[in-house]
Amino acid sequence: MGFTFPQKVLFKHCDPAGIVFYPRYFEMLNDCVEAFFDQDLALPFADLHKAGGVPTAEISTRFQAPSRHGDALVISLRVTHVGRSSLALAFRATCHDETRFIATSTLVLVNGNGRPTPWPNAVKQKLLDREETPAHDT
Amino acid sequence: MGFTFPQKVLFKHCDPAGIVFYPRYFEMLNDCVEAFFDQDLALPFADLHKAGGVPTAEISTRFQAPSRHGDALVISLRVTHVGRSSLALAFRATCHDETRFIATSTLVLVNGNGRPTPWPNAVKQKLLDREETPAHDT
Amino acid sequence: MGFTFPQKVLFKHCDPAGIVFYPRYFEMLNDCVEAFFDQDLALPFADLHKAGGVPTAEISTRFQAPSRHGDALVISLRVTHVGRSSLALAFRATCHDETRFIATSTLVLVNGNGRPTPWPNAVKQKLLDREETPAHDT
Amino acid sequence: MGFTFPQKVLFKHCDPAGIVFYPRYFEMLNDCVEAFFDQDLALPFADLHKAGGVPTAEISTRFQAPSRHGDALVISLRVTHVGRSSLALAFRATCHDETRFIATSTLVLVNGNGRPTPWPNAVKQKLLDREETPAHDT
Repeated sequence: MGFTFPQKVLFKHCDPAGIVFYPRYFEMLNDCVEAFFDQDLALPFADLHKAGGVPTAEISTRFQAPSRHGDALVISLRVTHVGRSSLALAFRATCHDETRFIATSTLVLVNGNGRPTPWPNAVKQKLLDREETPAHDT
Repeated sequence: MGFTFPQKVLFKHCDPAGIVFYPRYFEMLNDCVEAFFDQDLALPFADLHKAGGVPTAEISTRFQAPSRHGDALVISLRVTHVGRSSLALAFRATCHDETRFIATSTLVLVNGNGRPTPWPNAVKQKLLDREETPAHDT
Repeated sequence: MGFTFPQKVLFKHCDPAGIVFYPRYFEMLNDCVEAFFDQDLALPFADLHKAGGVPTAEISTRFQAPSRHGDALVISLRVTHVGRSSLALAFRATCHDETRFIATSTLVLVNGNGRPTPWPNAVKQKLLDREETPAHDT
Repeated sequence: MGFTFPQKVLFKHCDPAGIVFYPRYFEMLNDCVEAFFDQDLALPFADLHKAGGVPTAEISTRFQAPSRHGDALVISLRVTHVGRSSLALAFRATCHDETRFIATSTLVLVNGNGRPTPWPNAVKQKLLDREETPAHDT
Protein backbone atom coordinates (compact mmCIF):
# COMPACT_ATOMS: atom_id res chain seq x y z
CA MET A 1 0.00 0.00 0.00
CA GLY A 2 3.04 2.27 0.02
CA PHE A 3 3.94 5.15 2.31
CA THR A 4 1.25 7.70 3.19
CA PHE A 5 1.75 11.32 4.11
CA PRO A 6 -1.08 13.46 5.52
CA GLN A 7 -1.10 17.05 4.32
CA LYS A 8 -3.71 19.54 5.38
CA VAL A 9 -4.26 22.34 2.87
CA LEU A 10 -3.11 25.49 4.64
CA PHE A 11 -3.72 29.16 3.95
CA LYS A 12 -0.21 29.55 2.49
CA HIS A 13 -0.93 26.94 -0.20
CA CYS A 14 -3.92 28.74 -1.72
CA ASP A 15 -4.23 31.28 -4.49
CA PRO A 16 -6.73 34.08 -5.17
CA ALA A 17 -9.12 31.50 -6.67
CA GLY A 18 -9.18 29.84 -3.24
CA ILE A 19 -7.53 26.64 -4.48
CA VAL A 20 -4.03 25.25 -4.12
CA PHE A 21 -1.47 27.11 -6.24
CA TYR A 22 0.02 24.18 -8.16
CA PRO A 23 3.72 24.87 -7.45
CA ARG A 24 2.80 24.32 -3.79
CA TYR A 25 1.79 20.75 -4.69
CA PHE A 26 5.41 20.12 -5.68
CA GLU A 27 6.56 21.36 -2.29
CA MET A 28 4.12 18.86 -0.76
CA LEU A 29 5.55 16.07 -2.94
CA ASN A 30 9.07 17.03 -1.92
CA ASP A 31 8.03 16.98 1.75
CA CYS A 32 6.45 13.56 1.17
CA VAL A 33 9.68 12.19 -0.33
CA GLU A 34 11.64 13.69 2.57
CA ALA A 35 9.31 11.99 5.08
CA PHE A 36 9.59 8.71 3.15
CA PHE A 37 13.38 8.77 3.45
CA ASP A 38 13.30 9.91 7.10
CA GLN A 39 10.53 7.69 8.40
CA ASP A 40 10.16 4.72 6.11
CA LEU A 41 13.77 4.19 5.02
CA ALA A 42 15.30 5.57 8.25
CA LEU A 43 17.70 7.49 6.03
CA PRO A 44 17.46 11.12 7.16
CA PHE A 45 17.18 13.48 4.23
CA ALA A 46 19.48 15.93 6.03
CA ASP A 47 22.23 13.27 6.25
CA LEU A 48 21.68 12.27 2.64
CA HIS A 49 22.29 15.85 1.52
CA LYS A 50 25.59 16.17 3.38
CA ALA A 51 27.24 13.86 0.84
CA GLY A 52 25.25 14.72 -2.27
CA GLY A 53 21.52 14.58 -2.82
CA VAL A 54 18.59 13.15 -4.72
CA PRO A 55 17.59 15.71 -7.33
CA THR A 56 14.42 15.15 -9.32
CA ALA A 57 15.19 14.28 -12.95
CA GLU A 58 11.61 14.30 -14.21
CA ILE A 59 8.11 14.66 -12.90
CA SER A 60 4.70 14.43 -14.53
CA THR A 61 1.51 15.48 -12.83
CA ARG A 62 -2.19 15.44 -13.62
CA PHE A 63 -4.37 17.68 -11.48
CA GLN A 64 -7.80 16.03 -11.47
CA ALA A 65 -9.79 18.11 -9.01
CA PRO A 66 -8.97 21.30 -7.11
CA SER A 67 -8.14 21.34 -3.38
CA ARG A 68 -9.30 24.06 -1.02
CA HIS A 69 -8.11 25.58 2.24
CA GLY A 70 -8.81 23.17 5.09
CA ASP A 71 -8.93 20.00 2.97
CA ALA A 72 -7.25 17.00 4.58
CA LEU A 73 -5.16 15.51 1.79
CA VAL A 74 -3.42 12.17 2.03
CA ILE A 75 -0.52 11.63 -0.36
CA SER A 76 0.49 8.04 -1.06
CA LEU A 77 3.96 7.25 -2.40
CA ARG A 78 4.88 3.98 -4.11
CA VAL A 79 8.25 2.79 -5.35
CA THR A 80 7.75 1.69 -8.96
CA HIS A 81 11.32 1.05 -10.11
CA VAL A 82 14.75 0.95 -8.51
CA GLY A 83 17.64 1.56 -10.89
CA ARG A 84 21.39 1.64 -10.34
CA SER A 85 21.25 5.21 -9.05
CA SER A 86 17.68 6.15 -9.90
CA LEU A 87 14.34 5.72 -8.18
CA ALA A 88 10.95 5.92 -9.86
CA LEU A 89 8.01 6.93 -7.69
CA ALA A 90 4.25 7.20 -8.16
CA PHE A 91 2.08 9.49 -6.06
CA ARG A 92 -1.64 9.87 -5.55
CA ALA A 93 -3.20 12.64 -3.45
CA THR A 94 -6.74 12.06 -2.24
CA CYS A 95 -9.26 13.80 -0.03
CA HIS A 96 -12.07 11.56 1.22
CA ASP A 97 -11.49 9.10 -1.63
CA GLU A 98 -11.55 11.78 -4.31
CA THR A 99 -8.30 11.84 -6.25
CA ARG A 100 -6.97 15.36 -6.44
CA PHE A 101 -3.78 14.70 -8.38
CA ILE A 102 -1.46 11.92 -9.46
CA ALA A 103 2.20 12.18 -10.28
CA THR A 104 5.17 10.11 -11.31
CA SER A 105 8.76 11.15 -10.79
CA THR A 106 12.31 9.91 -11.13
CA LEU A 107 14.97 10.82 -8.60
CA VAL A 108 18.69 10.24 -9.01
CA LEU A 109 21.23 9.76 -6.25
CA VAL A 110 24.19 12.06 -6.85
CA ASN A 111 27.50 12.53 -5.07
CA GLY A 112 28.96 15.82 -3.91
CA ASN A 113 29.93 16.69 -7.49
CA GLY A 114 26.40 16.18 -8.75
CA ARG A 115 27.30 12.94 -10.58
CA PRO A 116 24.98 9.90 -10.41
CA THR A 117 26.26 7.38 -7.92
CA PRO A 118 24.94 3.87 -7.15
CA TRP A 119 22.58 3.33 -4.23
CA PRO A 120 24.46 1.83 -1.27
CA ASN A 121 23.52 -1.85 -0.98
CA ALA A 122 21.60 -1.46 2.27
CA VAL A 123 19.51 1.38 0.83
CA LYS A 124 18.96 -0.44 -2.46
CA GLN A 125 17.64 -3.47 -0.59
CA LYS A 126 15.18 -1.35 1.36
CA LEU A 127 13.99 0.27 -1.87
CA LEU A 128 13.66 -3.09 -3.67
CA ASP A 129 11.62 -4.40 -0.72
CA ARG A 130 9.13 -1.61 -1.42
CA GLU A 131 9.11 -1.88 -5.22
CA GLU A 132 5.75 -2.65 -6.76
CA THR A 133 4.13 -2.31 -10.17
CA PRO A 134 2.52 1.10 -10.70
CA ALA A 135 -0.99 -0.32 -11.08
CA HIS A 136 -2.55 2.46 -9.04
CA ASP A 137 -1.80 4.96 -11.76
CA THR A 138 -3.61 3.30 -14.58
CA MET B 1 9.95 31.38 -32.15
CA GLY B 2 7.41 31.81 -29.39
CA PHE B 3 7.41 34.07 -26.35
CA THR B 4 10.59 34.40 -24.31
CA PHE B 5 10.86 35.20 -20.64
CA PRO B 6 14.21 36.04 -18.99
CA GLN B 7 14.61 34.69 -15.47
CA LYS B 8 17.74 35.20 -13.44
CA VAL B 9 18.31 32.51 -10.83
CA LEU B 10 18.03 34.30 -7.49
CA PHE B 11 19.14 33.35 -3.99
CA LYS B 12 15.53 32.47 -3.04
CA HIS B 13 15.34 29.83 -5.79
CA CYS B 14 18.28 27.76 -4.54
CA ASP B 15 18.52 24.87 -2.11
CA PRO B 16 21.30 23.65 0.19
CA ALA B 17 22.92 21.89 -2.77
CA GLY B 18 23.29 25.33 -4.38
CA ILE B 19 20.96 24.52 -7.27
CA VAL B 20 17.38 25.54 -8.04
CA PHE B 21 14.83 23.78 -5.79
CA TYR B 22 12.58 22.29 -8.44
CA PRO B 23 9.21 23.58 -7.12
CA ARG B 24 10.65 27.05 -7.77
CA TYR B 25 10.87 26.14 -11.47
CA PHE B 26 7.09 25.81 -11.48
CA GLU B 27 6.76 29.29 -10.01
CA MET B 28 8.98 30.49 -12.86
CA LEU B 29 6.76 28.70 -15.40
CA ASN B 30 3.68 30.24 -13.83
CA ASP B 31 5.31 33.69 -14.00
CA CYS B 32 6.17 33.00 -17.65
CA VAL B 33 2.55 32.12 -18.46
CA GLU B 34 1.39 35.24 -16.61
CA ALA B 35 3.82 37.39 -18.65
CA PHE B 36 2.65 35.69 -21.87
CA PHE B 37 -0.98 36.61 -21.15
CA ASP B 38 -0.07 40.12 -19.98
CA GLN B 39 2.47 41.07 -22.62
CA ASP B 40 1.94 38.88 -25.66
CA LEU B 41 -1.84 38.42 -25.57
CA ALA B 42 -2.55 41.80 -23.91
CA LEU B 43 -4.94 39.93 -21.64
CA PRO B 44 -3.89 40.85 -18.09
CA PHE B 45 -3.73 37.80 -15.84
CA ALA B 46 -5.25 39.86 -13.02
CA ASP B 47 -8.33 40.65 -15.15
CA LEU B 48 -8.58 37.04 -16.30
CA HIS B 49 -8.77 35.89 -12.67
CA LYS B 50 -11.60 38.26 -11.78
CA ALA B 51 -14.03 36.12 -13.80
CA GLY B 52 -12.46 32.70 -13.32
CA GLY B 53 -8.97 31.55 -14.13
CA VAL B 54 -6.68 29.26 -16.07
CA PRO B 55 -5.75 26.39 -13.75
CA THR B 56 -3.10 23.94 -14.90
CA ALA B 57 -4.60 20.52 -15.66
CA GLU B 58 -1.36 18.69 -16.29
CA ILE B 59 2.34 19.37 -16.51
CA SER B 60 5.33 17.21 -17.34
CA THR B 61 8.90 18.30 -16.84
CA ARG B 62 12.34 16.92 -17.52
CA PHE B 63 15.21 18.55 -15.66
CA GLN B 64 18.26 18.06 -17.86
CA ALA B 65 20.95 20.07 -16.11
CA PRO B 66 21.02 21.95 -12.81
CA SER B 67 20.86 25.74 -12.57
CA ARG B 68 22.83 27.75 -10.06
CA HIS B 69 22.50 31.10 -8.30
CA GLY B 70 23.23 33.89 -10.77
CA ASP B 71 22.49 31.92 -13.94
CA ALA B 72 20.64 33.92 -16.58
CA LEU B 73 17.88 31.60 -17.74
CA VAL B 74 15.67 32.26 -20.72
CA ILE B 75 12.36 30.43 -20.78
CA SER B 76 10.67 30.06 -24.17
CA LEU B 77 6.94 29.36 -24.37
CA ARG B 78 5.20 27.93 -27.45
CA VAL B 79 1.51 27.34 -28.07
CA THR B 80 1.21 23.75 -29.29
CA HIS B 81 -2.57 23.25 -29.31
CA VAL B 82 -5.64 25.40 -28.82
CA GLY B 83 -8.75 23.53 -27.72
CA ARG B 84 -12.28 24.68 -26.98
CA SER B 85 -11.33 25.76 -23.48
CA SER B 86 -7.84 24.29 -23.17
CA LEU B 87 -4.39 25.46 -24.17
CA ALA B 88 -1.35 23.22 -24.58
CA LEU B 89 2.04 24.83 -24.06
CA ALA B 90 5.66 23.72 -24.44
CA PHE B 91 8.50 25.33 -22.53
CA ARG B 92 12.26 25.20 -22.77
CA ALA B 93 14.61 26.88 -20.30
CA THR B 94 18.14 27.52 -21.45
CA CYS B 95 21.27 29.19 -20.15
CA HIS B 96 23.84 30.06 -22.82
CA ASP B 97 22.38 27.46 -25.17
CA GLU B 98 22.44 24.68 -22.59
CA THR B 99 18.96 23.32 -22.00
CA ARG B 100 18.21 23.18 -18.30
CA PHE B 101 14.66 21.83 -18.43
CA ILE B 102 11.78 21.28 -20.79
CA ALA B 103 8.10 21.08 -19.92
CA THR B 104 4.70 20.65 -21.47
CA SER B 105 1.48 21.71 -19.81
CA THR B 106 -2.22 22.03 -20.43
CA LEU B 107 -4.23 24.93 -19.04
CA VAL B 108 -8.01 25.17 -18.98
CA LEU B 109 -10.07 28.34 -18.99
CA VAL B 110 -12.67 28.13 -16.22
CA ASN B 111 -15.50 30.41 -15.17
CA GLY B 112 -16.19 31.67 -11.65
CA ASN B 113 -17.59 28.26 -10.68
CA GLY B 114 -14.45 26.43 -11.79
CA ARG B 115 -16.18 24.94 -14.86
CA PRO B 116 -14.40 24.85 -18.26
CA THR B 117 -15.64 27.62 -20.48
CA PRO B 118 -14.79 28.31 -24.17
CA TRP B 119 -12.10 30.82 -25.05
CA PRO B 120 -13.68 34.11 -26.16
CA ASN B 121 -13.34 34.41 -29.94
CA ALA B 122 -10.85 37.27 -29.84
CA VAL B 123 -8.60 35.38 -27.43
CA LYS B 124 -8.92 32.14 -29.37
CA GLN B 125 -7.82 33.89 -32.55
CA LYS B 126 -4.74 35.30 -30.84
CA LEU B 127 -3.88 31.86 -29.52
CA LEU B 128 -4.41 30.18 -32.92
CA ASP B 129 -2.15 32.79 -34.50
CA ARG B 130 0.61 31.57 -32.19
CA GLU B 131 -0.07 27.83 -32.52
CA GLU B 132 2.80 25.76 -33.87
CA THR B 133 3.82 22.13 -33.86
CA PRO B 134 5.85 21.15 -30.82
CA ALA B 135 8.94 20.22 -32.82
CA HIS B 136 11.30 21.81 -30.32
CA ASP B 137 10.40 19.16 -27.75
CA THR B 138 11.38 16.11 -29.71
CA MET C 1 2.72 28.65 28.80
CA GLY C 2 0.96 29.45 25.55
CA PHE C 3 0.40 27.37 22.44
CA THR C 4 3.28 25.35 21.02
CA PHE C 5 3.79 24.31 17.43
CA PRO C 6 6.46 21.79 16.40
CA GLN C 7 8.18 22.52 13.11
CA LYS C 8 10.93 20.38 11.71
CA VAL C 9 13.29 22.23 9.39
CA LEU C 10 12.78 20.68 5.97
CA PHE C 11 14.85 20.74 2.80
CA LYS C 12 12.48 23.28 1.22
CA HIS C 13 13.17 25.79 4.02
CA CYS C 14 16.93 25.97 3.47
CA ASP C 15 19.10 28.18 1.32
CA PRO C 16 22.48 27.66 -0.36
CA ALA C 17 24.19 28.48 2.96
CA GLY C 18 22.40 25.44 4.41
CA ILE C 19 20.31 27.51 6.84
CA VAL C 20 16.66 28.52 6.84
CA PHE C 21 15.88 31.20 4.25
CA TYR C 22 14.27 33.81 6.51
CA PRO C 23 11.04 34.38 4.49
CA ARG C 24 10.33 30.70 5.21
CA TYR C 25 10.27 31.55 8.94
CA PHE C 26 7.30 33.81 8.24
CA GLU C 27 5.49 30.92 6.54
CA MET C 28 6.16 28.91 9.70
CA LEU C 29 4.76 31.73 11.86
CA ASN C 30 1.68 31.92 9.64
CA ASP C 31 1.22 28.13 9.94
CA CYS C 32 1.59 28.46 13.73
CA VAL C 33 -1.12 31.15 13.88
CA GLU C 34 -3.36 28.98 11.67
CA ALA C 35 -2.83 25.99 14.00
CA PHE C 36 -3.53 28.21 17.04
CA PHE C 37 -6.89 29.27 15.58
CA ASP C 38 -7.74 25.74 14.43
CA GLN C 39 -6.62 23.76 17.45
CA ASP C 40 -6.52 26.06 20.45
CA LEU C 41 -9.41 28.41 19.65
CA ALA C 42 -11.42 25.80 17.71
CA LEU C 43 -12.01 28.53 15.12
CA PRO C 44 -10.94 27.01 11.80
CA PHE C 45 -8.78 29.40 9.81
CA ALA C 46 -10.58 28.28 6.64
CA ASP C 47 -13.97 29.32 8.09
CA LEU C 48 -12.53 32.59 9.36
CA HIS C 49 -11.39 33.47 5.84
CA LYS C 50 -14.81 32.88 4.29
CA ALA C 51 -16.12 36.05 5.93
CA GLY C 52 -12.95 38.14 5.94
CA GLY C 53 -9.59 37.36 7.45
CA VAL C 54 -6.88 38.25 9.92
CA PRO C 55 -4.16 40.09 7.98
CA THR C 56 -0.90 40.87 9.74
CA ALA C 57 -0.54 44.61 10.39
CA GLU C 58 2.99 44.52 11.73
CA ILE C 59 5.67 42.03 12.62
CA SER C 60 9.14 42.39 14.12
CA THR C 61 11.63 39.57 14.25
CA ARG C 62 15.10 39.02 15.66
CA PHE C 63 16.98 36.02 14.28
CA GLN C 64 19.36 34.98 17.07
CA ALA C 65 20.90 31.78 15.75
CA PRO C 66 20.64 29.97 12.43
CA SER C 67 18.58 26.79 11.95
CA ARG C 68 19.68 23.92 9.76
CA HIS C 69 18.01 21.13 7.80
CA GLY C 70 16.72 18.49 10.19
CA ASP C 71 16.48 20.74 13.28
CA ALA C 72 13.39 20.14 15.39
CA LEU C 73 12.07 23.62 16.12
CA VAL C 74 9.30 24.35 18.59
CA ILE C 75 7.49 27.64 18.11
CA SER C 76 5.62 29.01 21.13
CA LEU C 77 2.84 31.55 20.64
CA ARG C 78 1.52 33.82 23.41
CA VAL C 79 -1.36 36.28 23.33
CA THR C 80 0.00 39.56 24.67
CA HIS C 81 -2.88 41.95 24.00
CA VAL C 82 -6.46 41.68 22.80
CA GLY C 83 -7.85 44.85 21.26
CA ARG C 84 -11.26 45.66 19.80
CA SER C 85 -10.38 44.03 16.48
CA SER C 86 -6.64 43.47 16.94
CA LEU C 87 -4.55 40.74 18.50
CA ALA C 88 -0.93 41.09 19.61
CA LEU C 89 1.15 37.93 19.66
CA ALA C 90 4.66 37.01 20.80
CA PHE C 91 6.57 34.06 19.37
CA ARG C 92 9.73 32.25 20.34
CA ALA C 93 11.28 29.47 18.26
CA THR C 94 13.68 27.17 20.04
CA CYS C 95 15.68 24.04 19.26
CA HIS C 96 16.86 22.10 22.33
CA ASP C 97 16.52 25.22 24.52
CA GLU C 98 18.50 27.42 22.14
CA THR C 99 16.43 30.35 20.97
CA ARG C 100 16.59 30.65 17.19
CA PHE C 101 14.31 33.65 16.72
CA ILE C 102 11.74 35.75 18.52
CA ALA C 103 8.94 37.78 16.96
CA THR C 104 6.03 39.98 17.85
CA SER C 105 3.12 40.65 15.56
CA THR C 106 -0.25 42.35 15.43
CA LEU C 107 -3.15 40.83 13.53
CA VAL C 108 -6.42 42.59 12.73
CA LEU C 109 -9.78 40.95 12.17
CA VAL C 110 -11.30 42.33 8.97
CA ASN C 111 -14.63 41.77 7.27
CA GLY C 112 -15.19 40.88 3.62
CA ASN C 113 -14.42 44.46 2.60
CA GLY C 114 -11.08 44.44 4.40
CA ARG C 115 -12.33 46.80 7.16
CA PRO C 116 -11.44 46.14 10.82
CA THR C 117 -14.36 44.53 12.62
CA PRO C 118 -14.72 43.70 16.35
CA TRP C 119 -13.95 40.21 17.60
CA PRO C 120 -17.17 38.27 18.20
CA ASN C 121 -17.77 38.05 21.96
CA ALA C 122 -17.14 34.31 22.18
CA VAL C 123 -13.83 34.62 20.35
CA LYS C 124 -12.79 37.67 22.36
CA GLN C 125 -13.38 35.79 25.59
CA LYS C 126 -11.23 32.89 24.43
CA LEU C 127 -8.46 35.31 23.48
CA LEU C 128 -8.69 37.20 26.80
CA ASP C 129 -8.47 33.87 28.65
CA ARG C 130 -5.08 33.37 26.97
CA GLU C 131 -3.80 36.92 27.37
CA GLU C 132 -0.59 37.26 29.34
CA THR C 133 2.13 39.85 29.74
CA PRO C 134 4.93 39.45 27.20
CA ALA C 135 7.60 38.73 29.84
CA HIS C 136 9.23 36.05 27.75
CA ASP C 137 10.41 38.61 25.25
CA THR C 138 12.36 40.81 27.58
CA MET D 1 16.93 58.88 -3.00
CA GLY D 2 18.30 55.39 -2.54
CA PHE D 3 17.98 52.35 -4.74
CA THR D 4 14.60 51.52 -6.26
CA PHE D 5 13.32 48.11 -7.26
CA PRO D 6 10.13 47.67 -9.30
CA GLN D 7 8.03 44.66 -8.32
CA LYS D 8 4.76 43.84 -10.00
CA VAL D 9 2.38 41.87 -7.80
CA LEU D 10 2.04 38.48 -9.48
CA PHE D 11 -0.50 35.70 -9.11
CA LYS D 12 1.93 33.64 -7.03
CA HIS D 13 2.18 36.40 -4.40
CA CYS D 14 -1.54 36.49 -3.60
CA ASP D 15 -3.64 34.61 -1.07
CA PRO D 16 -7.32 33.57 -1.04
CA ALA D 17 -8.26 37.07 0.14
CA GLY D 18 -6.80 38.35 -3.15
CA ILE D 19 -4.00 40.29 -1.44
CA VAL D 20 -0.27 39.65 -1.07
CA PHE D 21 0.49 36.84 1.41
CA TYR D 22 2.88 38.68 3.73
CA PRO D 23 5.74 36.13 3.70
CA ARG D 24 5.96 36.88 -0.04
CA TYR D 25 6.79 40.50 0.86
CA PHE D 26 9.94 39.21 2.55
CA GLU D 27 10.91 37.37 -0.63
CA MET D 28 10.46 40.70 -2.46
CA LEU D 29 12.67 42.46 0.11
CA ASN D 30 15.31 39.76 -0.27
CA ASP D 31 15.17 40.15 -4.05
CA CYS D 32 15.52 43.93 -3.60
CA VAL D 33 18.62 43.48 -1.42
CA GLU D 34 20.04 41.04 -3.98
CA ALA D 35 19.45 43.56 -6.80
CA PHE D 36 21.03 46.34 -4.68
CA PHE D 37 24.21 44.29 -4.24
CA ASP D 38 24.24 43.17 -7.89
CA GLN D 39 23.34 46.42 -9.59
CA ASP D 40 24.14 49.29 -7.25
CA LEU D 41 27.20 47.92 -5.45
CA ALA D 42 28.39 45.78 -8.40
CA LEU D 43 28.99 43.02 -5.87
CA PRO D 44 27.10 39.99 -7.24
CA PHE D 45 25.08 38.27 -4.54
CA ALA D 46 26.10 34.90 -6.00
CA ASP D 47 29.81 35.73 -5.54
CA LEU D 48 29.18 37.07 -2.04
CA HIS D 49 27.62 33.75 -1.04
CA LYS D 50 30.57 31.69 -2.24
CA ALA D 51 32.65 32.92 0.69
CA GLY D 52 29.93 33.38 3.30
CA GLY D 53 26.79 35.45 3.14
CA VAL D 54 24.72 38.31 4.51
CA PRO D 55 22.07 36.77 6.74
CA THR D 56 19.34 39.01 8.12
CA ALA D 57 19.72 39.53 11.87
CA GLU D 58 16.49 41.44 12.41
CA ILE D 59 13.63 42.88 10.44
CA SER D 60 10.59 44.94 11.40
CA THR D 61 7.72 45.61 9.06
CA ARG D 62 4.49 47.60 9.14
CA PHE D 63 1.93 46.69 6.50
CA GLN D 64 -0.08 49.86 5.92
CA ALA D 65 -2.34 48.98 3.01
CA PRO D 66 -2.94 45.73 1.12
CA SER D 67 -1.56 45.06 -2.36
CA ARG D 68 -3.47 43.22 -5.05
CA HIS D 69 -2.64 41.11 -8.09
CA GLY D 70 -1.42 43.40 -10.87
CA ASP D 71 -0.31 46.29 -8.66
CA ALA D 72 2.96 47.91 -9.75
CA LEU D 73 4.93 48.24 -6.54
CA VAL D 74 8.17 50.18 -6.25
CA ILE D 75 10.40 49.27 -3.33
CA SER D 76 12.97 51.85 -2.26
CA LEU D 77 16.02 50.81 -0.24
CA ARG D 78 18.14 53.19 1.83
CA VAL D 79 21.34 52.53 3.73
CA THR D 80 20.80 53.92 7.24
CA HIS D 81 23.88 52.68 9.08
CA VAL D 82 27.10 50.91 8.16
CA GLY D 83 28.73 49.01 11.01
CA ARG D 84 31.92 46.97 11.20
CA SER D 85 30.21 43.93 9.70
CA SER D 86 26.56 45.01 9.80
CA LEU D 87 24.36 47.04 7.49
CA ALA D 88 21.10 48.70 8.49
CA LEU D 89 18.54 49.24 5.74
CA ALA D 90 15.18 50.98 5.47
CA PHE D 91 12.59 50.05 2.87
CA ARG D 92 9.37 51.62 1.61
CA ALA D 93 7.05 49.95 -0.87
CA THR D 94 4.64 52.20 -2.70
CA CYS D 95 2.05 51.93 -5.44
CA HIS D 96 1.10 55.21 -7.09
CA ASP D 97 2.33 57.17 -4.06
CA GLU D 98 0.36 55.07 -1.58
CA THR D 99 2.68 53.43 0.93
CA ARG D 100 1.92 49.73 1.20
CA PHE D 101 4.55 48.75 3.75
CA ILE D 102 7.72 49.99 5.39
CA ALA D 103 10.48 47.91 6.88
CA THR D 104 13.84 48.20 8.58
CA SER D 105 16.39 45.42 8.69
CA THR D 106 19.93 44.66 9.78
CA LEU D 107 22.16 42.37 7.75
CA VAL D 108 25.49 40.97 8.90
CA LEU D 109 28.38 39.92 6.69
CA VAL D 110 29.55 36.46 7.74
CA ASN D 111 32.40 34.25 6.60
CA GLY D 112 32.16 30.61 5.56
CA ASN D 113 31.82 29.56 9.21
CA GLY D 114 28.87 31.89 9.80
CA ARG D 115 30.97 34.29 11.95
CA PRO D 116 30.62 38.08 11.48
CA THR D 117 33.48 39.44 9.43
CA PRO D 118 34.34 43.09 8.61
CA TRP D 119 33.23 44.59 5.33
CA PRO D 120 36.14 44.74 2.88
CA ASN D 121 37.33 48.35 2.63
CA ALA D 122 36.13 48.84 -0.95
CA VAL D 123 32.65 47.58 -0.09
CA LYS D 124 32.49 49.58 3.11
CA GLN D 125 33.33 52.76 1.21
CA LYS D 126 30.54 52.11 -1.29
CA LEU D 127 28.09 51.53 1.55
CA LEU D 128 29.21 54.68 3.42
CA ASP D 129 28.75 56.69 0.22
CA ARG D 130 25.10 55.62 0.28
CA GLU D 131 24.49 56.08 4.02
CA GLU D 132 21.77 58.53 4.95
CA THR D 133 19.64 59.26 7.98
CA PRO D 134 16.45 57.22 8.08
CA ALA D 135 14.16 60.26 7.88
CA HIS D 136 11.77 58.57 5.48
CA ASP D 137 10.70 56.15 8.18
CA THR D 138 9.49 58.63 10.74
